[in-house]
Amino acid sequence: MLELIDLDQRLSKADYAKVFPSLQEELGECQRAARAARVPVVIVFEGWDAAGKGSIINRLAQTLDPRGFEVHSTLAPTDNERLHPWMWRFWCTLPAEGNFAIFDRSWYRRVLEDRVRGNVSPAEWQSAYDDIDQFERQLVDAGVVVVKFWLHISKKEQRQRFKRLEKMAATAWKVGKRQWANHRHYDEWAEAVEEMLQRTSTPGAPWTVVEATQGRFRRTKVFETLLAAVRGEIDRRAASPRVEPKPMTPPEPSATNGHTILDRLDSSLSMDREQYELQLAKLHKRLFRLEHRLYIKRVPVAIVYEGVDAGGKGGNIKRLTRGLDPRGYEVVPIGVPTPVEKARHYLWRFWREAPKAGHIAIFDRSWYGRVLVERVEGFCSEDEWRRAYCEINEFERQLADFGTVIVKFWLHIDQDEQLRRFEARQNMPYKQWKITDDDWRNRKKWPEYKAAIVDMLERTSTTYAPWTVLEANCKLYARIKALRTVADTIQAALAKR
Amino acid sequence: MLELIDLDQRLSKADYAKVFPSLQEELGECQRAARAARVPVVIVFEGWDAAGKGSIINRLAQTLDPRGFEVHSTLAPTDNERLHPWMWRFWCTLPAEGNFAIFDRSWYRRVLEDRVRGNVSPAEWQSAYDDIDQFERQLVDAGVVVVKFWLHISKKEQRQRFKRLEKMAATAWKVGKRQWANHRHYDEWAEAVEEMLQRTSTPGAPWTVVEATQGRFRRTKVFETLLAAVRGEIDRRAASPRVEPKPMTPPEPSATNGHTILDRLDSSLSMDREQYELQLAKLHKRLFRLEHRLYIKRVPVAIVYEGVDAGGKGGNIKRLTRGLDPRGYEVVPIGVPTPVEKARHYLWRFWREAPKAGHIAIFDRSWYGRVLVERVEGFCSEDEWRRAYCEINEFERQLADFGTVIVKFWLHIDQDEQLRRFEARQNMPYKQWKITDDDWRNRKKWPEYKAAIVDMLERTSTTYAPWTVLEANCKLYARIKALRTVADTIQAALAKR
Repeated sequence: MLELIDLDQRLSKADYAKVFPSLQEELGECQRAARAARVPVVIVFEGWDAAGKGSIINRLAQTLDPRGFEVHSTLAPTDNERLHPWMWRFWCTLPAEGNFAIFDRSWYRRVLEDRVRGNVSPAEWQSAYDDIDQFERQLVDAGVVVVKFWLHISKKEQRQRFKRLEKMAATAWKVGKRQWANHRHYDEWAEAVEEMLQRTSTPGAPWTVVEATQGRFRRTKVFETLLAAVRGEIDRRAASPRVEPKPMTPPEPSATNGHTILDRLDSSLSMDREQYELQLAKLHKRLFRLEHRLYIKRVPVAIVYEGVDAGGKGGNIKRLTRGLDPRGYEVVPIGVPTPVEKARHYLWRFWREAPKAGHIAIFDRSWYGRVLVERVEGFCSEDEWRRAYCEINEFERQLADFGTVIVKFWLHIDQDEQLRRFEARQNMPYKQWKITDDDWRNRKKWPEYKAAIVDMLERTSTTYAPWTVLEANCKLYARIKALRTVADTIQAALAKR
Repeated sequence: MLELIDLDQRLSKADYAKVFPSLQEELGECQRAARAARVPVVIVFEGWDAAGKGSIINRLAQTLDPRGFEVHSTLAPTDNERLHPWMWRFWCTLPAEGNFAIFDRSWYRRVLEDRVRGNVSPAEWQSAYDDIDQFERQLVDAGVVVVKFWLHISKKEQRQRFKRLEKMAATAWKVGKRQWANHRHYDEWAEAVEEMLQRTSTPGAPWTVVEATQGRFRRTKVFETLLAAVRGEIDRRAASPRVEPKPMTPPEPSATNGHTILDRLDSSLSMDREQYELQLAKLHKRLFRLEHRLYIKRVPVAIVYEGVDAGGKGGNIKRLTRGLDPRGYEVVPIGVPTPVEKARHYLWRFWREAPKAGHIAIFDRSWYGRVLVERVEGFCSEDEWRRAYCEINEFERQLADFGTVIVKFWLHIDQDEQLRRFEARQNMPYKQWKITDDDWRNRKKWPEYKAAIVDMLERTSTTYAPWTVLEANCKLYARIKALRTVADTIQAALAKR
C-alpha cells in the first residue's frame, strides 16, 4: 500500500495553529478518560531512520501526564534479553490498565532491521510473524488498545535529512555508517516494510502509515489517529459493559464423561520408604549432573506443579530442589495476583518469570490458574477461559521454540485421601497453617474442579509441553515419579542439542 | 493429547438405552431451534479408516430432518476442483443459515492423507494450516458453529476391523491396498494427527477426540458434543442480540485526511478519439494473444471493476471483453445479494465465482461492496466491515497463492462530471434505465463514500492484489489505461511461469 502514500502532504501554519493546540488538549482529556475506564494503550513507532520518531515521541511526552506513560526504546537485545525468548522483553514492559506504553521501535525490529541485516535466520523472522500475531491478538482480546505507526519518508528526503544532521555537531552522532548502509538498501527495506504492513495489519491492531515529510502534518496525523483509537475503545466499553462472570455450575450429567483420565488413575500405586530413599539418592545425583550440563548448554527448563489441594506439591518440590545447585534454579510460588499483576494481562507475570537459558524455573502453581480456579470461581468470563487454552498453548510454544524444556505435573489424590490429609492438618498444630476455609470450600466443588482439570489436561497437553499426571495418594511414589520424569525429559532434550 | 485418550471407553447397553433415545429427540429439537435462530452448523468427521465415520453420519442423518442438512464426502479433488484454489470446493458447500453441513472427511485431508501420502509438497501442507485457520475463523466470526470430531481407534483395533470387513462380501471393498498401506504407517499418521489437533484447535473451533472403539460410546459422545455446541451458540445469540447496524456518519473534520489519493488524481487526463482507436486496436490484438497464452499455461485471472456511480464501468468492461475469446472469460455482475446469498457468508458467492485455471473472471462490482455500500448504508455492523479488510486480503491471498493474477480497478470521476452524466442519462430516453433514485441518494453521501473508498484502497492494496485507480473523467483515457494495465499485468505474470 506504500505506493498510495503521498509524501508531499503538508499542513499550512495557519491550519496547524487552528487544530494542533486543541488536539493536545483533547489528548490530555483522553488520557484521563482512559485512566478512568482502565484502558491500557500500546503505541508503536516504527519508521525510516530520521523520519522523526524521536521528535513525535517527544511531543507526545510533553502532552501526556508523565505519571501515566512510559517510553521504551528498543535497541539490540541486551545479554540478559538474549537469554530469554525474544518476545520476553516486550511482555515485561506491558502497561498497566489506564496507562500508555510508547515504543520507539518495537517487536517489529525482528522482521525489519534484524531481517534485512541478516541478524536472524529466515526461519526466525518468518516465525516471528506468528509470534507477533499471537502477541497482539492476546493484547487486543484483553482490551489493550494497540496503535501502530509507520513514519514514511522517501529515499531522497532521508538523504537530505542525513546531510542536515551530519552538519550539526549536536546531531551528527545520529548518522553513522549503519544509517548510510540502511539508506543504500532503501528499496530492500521498503519491500520488507510492505510485507510487514500486509502481514500484520489486523482488525484489532491495524497499521497507520504517516506521511512524515512535514513535521506539522506528521504530528497532527499521529495525534488524530491516537485519539480516535483510544476513544473508540472507551466508547466500545461504555456501550457494552463487562458482564459479571459467574462461577462454574456443576457439570451436566453426561453418559460419556464419567470415564476421564482422572478416573483411570491407579490410586494404589505406592512405594516403600526403603526403595524411596534408594531411588531418591540416585535421582539426586543424576539431576545434579544434568543441571550442570544444561547450564553449559544454555538450555532453559520450566517445571510446572499443579494439583489437588493437599496433593503434596510443596513436599514434592522440596525433594526436587534438594538435589539441585541453588544457583541454577528458582522456585516461583504463584498466589493470588497482586494489584500490580491484576492491572495487566494475566500472562504478564508468567512471562516475566520465564526461565532464562541454562536455568530452571519451578512454578508452584502457574498460569493454569486461569482455567482452574478462575474458571471455577468465576474470576474470569467464559470467553476468557475458553480463549486461555489457546493462549497458554501459544505461550508454551514460544517458550519451546526458544528451546525451553517444559515439564508439567498434575498431582492427583482421591477425595478420601484428601479428607484424611485435611483432618491430619487440622489436628497437627504445626500443620494447621496449611489448611484454610478455602480448602474446605474448594472441596465442595470437587465435580466442577474435576471437569475443569480434565478439560485442561486434554486441551493443553501438547508434544512440546505434555502433562504428566502423578498418582499422589502415596507421596513417596509421586516424588520419585516426578524426579524421574524431570531427569528423563532433560536428558532427552540434552541428547538432541 | 492423544496419549490421554482411553480407547477402552464403553457404555453398557442399559446406560445407552437410558440416554441415547432422549439425545436423539433433543437433537431434533435442537435442529429446529437452530433453524429458528438462523444458526448454520458445520460438522467435520475425520478419523482413522474404519473408525466408524460412516455409521455415525448415518445415525445423524436418521435423526435430523433431511430438509435441513447435507452430507459432503470429501474424496480426492475432481478435475474441475483442481482447476480452483484448494479451499474453493469447501467454500462452495457452506450451509445456509439454520442448516447443517456434515463433512465426511474435509479440508483436513490436506494436512493428513495428502500430506502423509506425499500428494502435496511440504510448503503446500504447511501453508494449508494458515488457509484452514483463516477459513474457520471467518466462519466462526460470522456465527457459524464449527464442530470437529476426530474418531480415534488403536492400530490393533483397526487391524481387527479390517479383517472383519474383508471377510464379508458386502464390506470387503472398503479395505483395499490403500487402507492396509495407511495401516502400516499408523504411527506416522498419528504424528500428523497430533500436530493437526495442536495447530487447529482454536477457541471458536476446537477438536473433540472421540474414543471410537465402541459404537454406543462413540455415538453418545458425538451427539452430546454436537448438542452442547449448537445450544451454546443459540444461547449466546439470545443473551446478546445483534445490534442493528447504523449507516455511516459523515466523517469527522480532520486536518490530515483532506489530501487523499482521490484528491491527488489528475482529473484532466484525457485522450482523443483517434489515438484511442489506434491504441484500442493494438491492445485488443495483444490481449487476444495473451488470453491464449494464459489458457495454455493454466493461469487464472480475476479482474475487479469498482467505481463511482456513472464512472463508466460497463463501457470499460465492454471494451475489454471485445478483444477476448468469449470461451476464455466470464463477466460476473454483482448486484444486491439474493436470499440464497444473504443466508450465507458474504464471501460465499465470490468464492463460487473464483476464476478457474486458464480463465478470466471479470467482476462488475465485487466483494468490495462489504466495505463500500454495506458500510456506508449500515447493511453490516462496524465489527463486520472492520474485519472485512482482513478477510478480503486473506481471500485474495488464497487466490494469489493458487497463481491467480488479480487486477483491481477503481474508476473515479469528480462530482461535477458525475452530475453531468446523471443529467445526460435522465435526458436520453435510451439511457434512462441506467439512473435510479438510489444514484441520487448515493450522490448525497459523497463524503461518506469518499472516506470509505480511501480506507478501502489503503487497506486492501497489496503486492499480490494492488489497486489501480483509473482517472475516468475521460472515458477513452480510462479504457485504454485499464486494458493496458490488464495486458501488462498478465504479461508480467506469464513471464514468471
